[in-house]
Amino acid sequence: MKSESAITCQFEVPFRFRVFFTAGVFDCDNDLLREVLREDGSRRERLLAVMDESLLAANPKLGDKITAYLSQSNIDLVCQPLVLPGGEALKNQTEPVNELYRQIEGHKLSRHSYILAVGGGALLDVVGFAAATAHRGVRHIRLPTTTLSQADGGVGVKNAINAFGKKNFIGTFAPPFAVINDSDFLESLPASEKAAGYIEAVKVGLIRDADFFSEIENMVEALNRFEPAALQRVIRRCADLHVQHIAQNGDPFERGSARPLDFGHWAAHKLEQLSSFRLRHGEAVAIGIALDVIYSREAGYLAGPDAARILALLRRLGFALFAPEMLDIDRLLVGLDEFREHLGGDLTITLLRGIGRGFEVHEVSRALVERAIEELRQGQPALTTAK
Amino acid sequence: MKSESAITCQFEVPFRFRVFFTAGVFDCDNDLLREVLREDGSRRERLLAVMDESLLAANPKLGDKITAYLSQSNIDLVCQPLVLPGGEALKNQTEPVNELYRQIEGHKLSRHSYILAVGGGALLDVVGFAAATAHRGVRHIRLPTTTLSQADGGVGVKNAINAFGKKNFIGTFAPPFAVINDSDFLESLPASEKAAGYIEAVKVGLIRDADFFSEIENMVEALNRFEPAALQRVIRRCADLHVQHIAQNGDPFERGSARPLDFGHWAAHKLEQLSSFRLRHGEAVAIGIALDVIYSREAGYLAGPDAARILALLRRLGFALFAPEMLDIDRLLVGLDEFREHLGGDLTITLLRGIGRGFEVHEVSRALVERAIEELRQGQPALTTAK
Repeated sequence: MKSESAITCQFEVPFRFRVFFTAGVFDCDNDLLREVLREDGSRRERLLAVMDESLLAANPKLGDKITAYLSQSNIDLVCQPLVLPGGEALKNQTEPVNELYRQIEGHKLSRHSYILAVGGGALLDVVGFAAATAHRGVRHIRLPTTTLSQADGGVGVKNAINAFGKKNFIGTFAPPFAVINDSDFLESLPASEKAAGYIEAVKVGLIRDADFFSEIENMVEALNRFEPAALQRVIRRCADLHVQHIAQNGDPFERGSARPLDFGHWAAHKLEQLSSFRLRHGEAVAIGIALDVIYSREAGYLAGPDAARILALLRRLGFALFAPEMLDIDRLLVGLDEFREHLGGDLTITLLRGIGRGFEVHEVSRALVERAIEELRQGQPALTTAK
Repeated sequence: MKSESAITCQFEVPFRFRVFFTAGVFDCDNDLLREVLREDGSRRERLLAVMDESLLAANPKLGDKITAYLSQSNIDLVCQPLVLPGGEALKNQTEPVNELYRQIEGHKLSRHSYILAVGGGALLDVVGFAAATAHRGVRHIRLPTTTLSQADGGVGVKNAINAFGKKNFIGTFAPPFAVINDSDFLESLPASEKAAGYIEAVKVGLIRDADFFSEIENMVEALNRFEPAALQRVIRRCADLHVQHIAQNGDPFERGSARPLDFGHWAAHKLEQLSSFRLRHGEAVAIGIALDVIYSREAGYLAGPDAARILALLRRLGFALFAPEMLDIDRLLVGLDEFREHLGGDLTITLLRGIGRGFEVHEVSRALVERAIEELRQGQPALTTAK
């Protein structure tokens, strides 16, 4: 290799953002957002606000409230908050991203301007992708409004839209400018959406933190009643563990083949797609986790009582652990290929050796997947395999 | 600010790539590319090759040559090299990016697969953007084939396409996996394209390295004859200075408001657009530099003899220093706003205090711009202002 004449370009890019917890973020006497916006000095910057349609339905004055709040800041709100429909369907199109580009261009936003996204995970993803690629990156502030996005995706460093029926096919790694978790937004959620976030809490407990898993077990009744303190505790701990993982695992932009936070997700992503997104992300992840828990047990890694304890918690939290799409095993297993294709390198799947003890394997046995699906179909541990 | 409860997410992402210099990169006995592809271990990975139509016209066997070369590697070339028309027009559409997404998806490329782009700056930009956003980043190897892209854009960390008539409106910062500068590609270039790269050499000499500027002066005849040694020297030194800037200036992803390597570019980008891209990038940059050199002199920063020396070099290198689009000063000055919008923060323009001594200003006087344009229109230093 004629490398004696090569030039090496080597550098590190520092990233830093904070995740704040508050209530009533747009109340005029709540200074948090104004101070986040002032962090970078006193220059007046522009801001485009984008919010989820369903939020506006639950709170018709939200747009006016945002406008009134920002009128008391050193920020130029460039237009009335833009309204986009939330939900996964938003990610299946390119038009919302193009509409955001048009707004960013038309209102002369710069790299130092702000885009404030108020909504669930899908809306945050779409806005995040547009913000990350317009001018090669406009500052993006996320206000996740669902349990799931406050606990998980909203505090991460990724964004994406779907393409070719593949989830998150197009996207970037682009840390937000800041994340603000406002507990008030959770109150207007339907029960199923409130509960959807619990699955990421269970997941992160399973792979990383047995004490947190136990804590969730002890809080089940409170969580099922959506008691604010329990909800907040779960979100806070999830966000903590998520941020720890990003900052400390040494691979925030996922150049390797492992993605431990995606425990249970290979099947989940595929089930979302096979069900034409009838299964929501949280619902699909619950099934995917159940599948990989039984798989871990059947493969001899996880003790029977631990597996039973995990499945019991999932059921007590109200998650259905079976979907008919699982019976199409050939198509489900394509999810493994797609999972590998997305990350590259060797297939790397997280399984469990115990509660709080995730580890990685590089192959998956079809026979054991079939057995796990059959057990979930029957809705109870199979007598022949329970240990 | 209720920041006592905030979580801080802070981390650094390391980047590293090499810029290689070679000749005959696809000759079967040249191991360089094969070794670059083997760098990451022995796993067979997939590779999609994309090349510039005009290269194929100059070298009809190039596709077969790439195929033959890679057949002797541990790489699966997923299909015949894809051919795209080069030139700025490619960046004005979204279809080429979508076509690349289709190929990446259809051929099951992963984050660890490779996309090899062989072409000029526009093609590298389009392929780089698709590669950076599919799966949130497929490995991208650049083989710049023009003097301009080998010296400048090809060795950088940016990619982009145009939108809304604005150059590079949509893009990302995404360092390549590797860059290979093959001097053989330059031989088939038309003379105007060979010379186009010289302007970035003059630019970087002007803002950073007076010795390099003098060296270019001494090589003018050799450069005008396109002598390989002179061409190589200029490309090598430019690539060196460009990489030094990225790795050492502390802001590789341009979060601040300054972009010193864009000396002369505020007018250049606008002139490209105002001329509907009749003016090519190198031609427009030559005019933009001439404008900012005269401006620097008129504003009292740059001595008359230095300005004269610079303009003389530009003319000796064959650059035309005037375009009729400059006379539409209102629209030209919109380029300043667009330049600021793209970067954000305060307007920051690089001017010269001397040869090799760039510095920054934050405002631009319309009267002095007008005077500079008038001088360029007359094609010679105005008697009243020459010092």
